[in-house]
Amino acid sequence: MDIHNIDTVSFDREANALVIIDQTLLPGEVRLLPLTDRDSIFEAIRYLRVRGAPAIGAAAAVGLAVLAARRAPSSLEALKEDVKEDSAFLASARPTAVNLFWALARMEKALDHDFSSVEEALEALRSEAESIIAEDVETCRRIGENGLTLLRGGMGVLTHCNAGKLATIKYGTATAPMYLALERGMKLRIYADETRPLLQGARLTAYELSAAGADVTLQCDDMAASAMAEGLIDIVITGADRIAANGDAANKIGTLGLAVLAKHYGIPFYIAAPFSTIDLATPDGSGIKIEQRDASEVTELWYARRMAPEGVKVRNPAFDVTDHSLITGIITERGVARPDYLTSLRTLAEE
Amino acid sequence: MDIHNIDTVSFDREANALVIIDQTLLPGEVRLLPLTDRDSIFEAIRYLRVRGAPAIGAAAAVGLAVLAARRAPSSLEALKEDVKEDSAFLASARPTAVNLFWALARMEKALDHDFSSVEEALEALRSEAESIIAEDVETCRRIGENGLTLLRGGMGVLTHCNAGKLATIKYGTATAPMYLALERGMKLRIYADETRPLLQGARLTAYELSAAGADVTLQCDDMAASAMAEGLIDIVITGADRIAANGDAANKIGTLGLAVLAKHYGIPFYIAAPFSTIDLATPDGSGIKIEQRDASEVTELWYARRMAPEGVKVRNPAFDVTDHSLITGIITERGVARPDYLTSLRTLAEE
Repeated sequence: MDIHNIDTVSFDREANALVIIDQTLLPGEVRLLPLTDRDSIFEAIRYLRVRGAPAIGAAAAVGLAVLAARRAPSSLEALKEDVKEDSAFLASARPTAVNLFWALARMEKALDHDFSSVEEALEALRSEAESIIAEDVETCRRIGENGLTLLRGGMGVLTHCNAGKLATIKYGTATAPMYLALERGMKLRIYADETRPLLQGARLTAYELSAAGADVTLQCDDMAASAMAEGLIDIVITGADRIAANGDAANKIGTLGLAVLAKHYGIPFYIAAPFSTIDLATPDGSGIKIEQRDASEVTELWYARRMAPEGVKVRNPAFDVTDHSLITGIITERGVARPDYLTSLRTLAEE
Repeated sequence: MDIHNIDTVSFDREANALVIIDQTLLPGEVRLLPLTDRDSIFEAIRYLRVRGAPAIGAAAAVGLAVLAARRAPSSLEALKEDVKEDSAFLASARPTAVNLFWALARMEKALDHDFSSVEEALEALRSEAESIIAEDVETCRRIGENGLTLLRGGMGVLTHCNAGKLATIKYGTATAPMYLALERGMKLRIYADETRPLLQGARLTAYELSAAGADVTLQCDDMAASAMAEGLIDIVITGADRIAANGDAANKIGTLGLAVLAKHYGIPFYIAAPFSTIDLATPDGSGIKIEQRDASEVTELWYARRMAPEGVKVRNPAFDVTDHSLITGIITERGVARPDYLTSLRTLAEE
């Protein structure tokens, strides 16, 4: 199967199924998972079969539409109750992903109309899920256009984790400027951190970018400083899972360290994210809850072979918060926000 | 087998063998390897069955004594030729390890005497190798005493890679103050970076320290910044493979990044190393050659399962050079050197 021609998340209307690429099997195997029941959809989000803020949001939205129809509610009231219950359940799958809550809330809001039948309401849900998908594609393309203004041919671009096509539907967020550069013949040297513990950079970013024909070099996370010291890196672009009103950005563990290193070496550090990632109701990063994940992700690699002694204590935070003072700009579909973010993010929000 | 009661490198006189713990099998299995031929000794150094600057030096010294006797030279001249040849061969196993060259040179120098027989010269080699081992134990204990002056009960101590007992004969270098703290009832919270690609922090440091009863927490390399931001780390201590006259220190890849992070967070960053690691003939870090290792170390974990797409480009430098401006002090067996290192290292060297 050619990963290029498959959307990361899609809605199969005929089968009434959410269809995702199972990302835990990449890069070894490209397998499509059709999901139709609540537990499988929850499990797919929780265990990162679908991951990346925008893709999680789209998957939850499609999932909610699929589940509502499966339940075959007898009345509009029953439908709304069902959707509310499923929404709360799916929201608990990943506590840091603001896009998940955003997409679920938007789906619930799509039911705030006078419908003449249950079927009409179900169609409104399906249509809203499809809009979320289409808008994500357009949002990523615009992030790409805005990010591309920061790039020049020959630049070394470092990214962390996977804020790529596989984290969205198409283009990605941090990778969107890279894909557009590729389309337009601008040559970049892309460096991908492998991103321990789950190796999304190695398995996903290096995979999708090299499959697209980009010049991408994989390195371990602890090699980023030496790449900067050697002058290989001209710009750092990562994604974000949640951005506070002052610009503090929660993203995959390791992002904060890259931002500190970039500052030390005088390299611009950018976050690329859809506006839905920006949470103006959260004043700063201290209000962002960091998920602590299972120790086995660190001690056992894909449960294949134990890499650390039995019983060792493990720290395994999934995210860190990058202080706004370390961020050169935030690339969104509405433009590139610059410090102070409190003003620039609000201004972009109001446009 | 109890790792505590086994020296990392030893000389079995009866069997005329170099005996090492095969560190590529840890933490799963403790296996002693008796090595008696040139290719096995070279292979053990090259493929990190024995690793860590002081342990490599001791292994090469014992190896040289073992090989000289095996060759059963007919004259003192033949012996010196043999030793010269074996020394050059073993020196090529790891191009960054100055201790390797230092130990081999010292062994060759042990032959600069008037011997009355080949056997007397062979005994001088054996005795020199045993001195190198005994001196290493004493050197590490003194590094521990000097480092201990920087620690207080309750401190969080971060280390990278393995500059532990398993990198020396006993005590280690970066870990020596931690082992002495443990012996004297001073409670520390130790954090060990797993240290990709070869995971020496997870497999060796977390293993040897937890086996000794220390409070040690394992984390991925990209989690160090968040640990510092959360206030968990009060001091960073790593080892070094080679230190230039101005204090620039080559150590396991990732050390440089930790030093930059420590500076950003105002956390003292120390290197702990025997004086034999200090190369006063190399003016600064730019003169230190960095070994580039095989891509498969990054793309395949212990060759168990492929973690990255086929054909992806990989950066895999084994070391980086930490600029002296990022180093708070260099803990040696002669005392703690402070900036400027050009003066303080020379002063300690002359004492």
